[in-house]
Amino acid sequence: MQNVRVVLIGLGNLGRRFCEMVAAKQPLLAERYGLRLTLVGAADSRGAAYDPGGLDLRKVSEIKLGGATIADYSGVGQPGWGAVALVRAAEADVLLDASPVNLSDGAEPALTCIRTAMNKGWHVITSNKGPLVMAFRELHELAREKNVAFRYDGTVAGGLPALNVGCRDLRGAQLSRLEAVPNLVTGYVMDMLAEGTSWQDATAKARAEGVLEADASWDLDGWDAAAKLVILANAVLGCDAKLEDVERAGISGVTPAKLAAARARGEQYRLLACADLQDDGTYKLSAVPTSLASSHPLGRLGRKQMGVVYTTDIYGTITFIIDEPNPVPSSATMLRDLLDIYVDDSTSLVI
Amino acid sequence: MQNVRVVLIGLGNLGRRFCEMVAAKQPLLAERYGLRLTLVGAADSRGAAYDPGGLDLRKVSEIKLGGATIADYSGVGQPGWGAVALVRAAEADVLLDASPVNLSDGAEPALTCIRTAMNKGWHVITSNKGPLVMAFRELHELAREKNVAFRYDGTVAGGLPALNVGCRDLRGAQLSRLEAVPNLVTGYVMDMLAEGTSWQDATAKARAEGVLEADASWDLDGWDAAAKLVILANAVLGCDAKLEDVERAGISGVTPAKLAAARARGEQYRLLACADLQDDGTYKLSAVPTSLASSHPLGRLGRKQMGVVYTTDIYGTITFIIDEPNPVPSSATMLRDLLDIYVDDSTSLVI
Repeated sequence: MQNVRVVLIGLGNLGRRFCEMVAAKQPLLAERYGLRLTLVGAADSRGAAYDPGGLDLRKVSEIKLGGATIADYSGVGQPGWGAVALVRAAEADVLLDASPVNLSDGAEPALTCIRTAMNKGWHVITSNKGPLVMAFRELHELAREKNVAFRYDGTVAGGLPALNVGCRDLRGAQLSRLEAVPNLVTGYVMDMLAEGTSWQDATAKARAEGVLEADASWDLDGWDAAAKLVILANAVLGCDAKLEDVERAGISGVTPAKLAAARARGEQYRLLACADLQDDGTYKLSAVPTSLASSHPLGRLGRKQMGVVYTTDIYGTITFIIDEPNPVPSSATMLRDLLDIYVDDSTSLVI
Repeated sequence: MQNVRVVLIGLGNLGRRFCEMVAAKQPLLAERYGLRLTLVGAADSRGAAYDPGGLDLRKVSEIKLGGATIADYSGVGQPGWGAVALVRAAEADVLLDASPVNLSDGAEPALTCIRTAMNKGWHVITSNKGPLVMAFRELHELAREKNVAFRYDGTVAGGLPALNVGCRDLRGAQLSRLEAVPNLVTGYVMDMLAEGTSWQDATAKARAEGVLEADASWDLDGWDAAAKLVILANAVLGCDAKLEDVERAGISGVTPAKLAAARARGEQYRLLACADLQDDGTYKLSAVPTSLASSHPLGRLGRKQMGVVYTTDIYGTITFIIDEPNPVPSSATMLRDLLDIYVDDSTSLVI
């Protein structure tokens, strides 16, 4: 039985669910893969806890569900102890970064945590787009130099293995086009607008359901979709793209009249992230609201569905769609990444 | 630059196209992955050729397009030399098996070729369902014992990475249901029948277009779909299934009246391969013509499309669809498997 010591920063929706999932899955992980995950450290925005013997995953989840901070974890919780200090102090094998995107602050503290972890020889798994958008190449080079794994399959389209497929299963291909509908809330709001709901009511409803974050601009103005496209383009297409390279438009400019007209034509608006191969060999990147015909591979997505389409020279056109009724699949991507690092499939891929 | 020596058995649609593809892709493979593929040996049903210095990939393709045999390859071709003898005699790193399914003959010569190659320490990539249906566990155990890779991503749904995703990206999950439309010609024929074409005309048209093989029963009676389901179930679900474990029905029993009625309801028949988790923890396997509502993830497949749906506990419901206008994606799966063996992604997956 291999014991994997994990430090988790970020205990919001994803981090907390990850703890619950691993608690429930430990017997299966032991039986199927001979692995045991031990959460030795965890941090939220108010403090941290560290126990080399392992924190109780269910207790961590209960603390967070009760609205408290991990600093309240009895015995080992420390108020005011930050994520960076925890990563510096801990002994572990893997950093799991489930902290929220924070571009205004230079993607901190995630970026420093990731650099610190890699320098200590830890593998790094992040579900946070911030460090990737800010320092994609630097972090990959550091991972290579330190010979540690760096994975982030959950940053692009929830639980859809869009990056894994794009990077691994399309090897040897040339992509002429990459399309994605990687953001749920913009589709949801536009669907409501098309049905006659007002902007205020639609966004209020999305906020009440917890699908629209406090910083609504990140989703509604297309930043989230643009960031995901940057990650896809850099990882799958070999680009060296930044956020400012993406032609970006939010959904507030799409009038109810346009939305209703699209629907009357049997079409549906989605915030489409797109990379298009140009004659000069570069990719044109855009994330703009687009009316999709029902015959488009992503033209009939429901409100809980995201999708990616890869148009390739030798693997045909491949469409992936995920139905993600809750944030569980997004948090499960960290388990996917972790198992991908630790499960040896050098002979065959059979489970 | 790493040189990979390959022996290819089977030079039909897939094998020949693989040669053409690799010839065209050599510069990209060298630049992107530091790899060079050398075809040292090849066999078809009439003979074989072996040249440790490498056969000319374009010349092999031309010979086959001209209707001749690889035995005619000048200098090194040998009429009557069989695939097994070639594999025994050759020095190589990888066996590529693109030979046709031949269950009536115990999946030979592919099965013996694969065993021989593994025993010689070669990696094995097969696009042939036969050896997998006949000897799934045995071949996996042999690969593990010999520490060689055994891959077969192209056996299930053309160019769709259904097995790779199922085995790798769903690690840690429990699947409650696996559905696939893995066979093109049955959908094509049923669509024609629904439009009023007679059985004879529909099958004749499919045969004329080269999508229906000489042994029409393999496709039309559901054997192909059942074999693909057996491979999926064994690889992704950990079953130990055989062909006879699949409840199977061909498409000849679906009357034109049924097909037309389904169409009138907005539905569409496809030969659906399905694995359903039972209360006792086993999977019920079936491959039967099924009328799919347009809301079903595979309910609107075109005649050149195949798809797979994984319903999971922690990764949501994931649907993959491939648009495969010709056999190129199916033959490209052998390149995908080969690159997966040789490209080192121990740190990150970026291309």
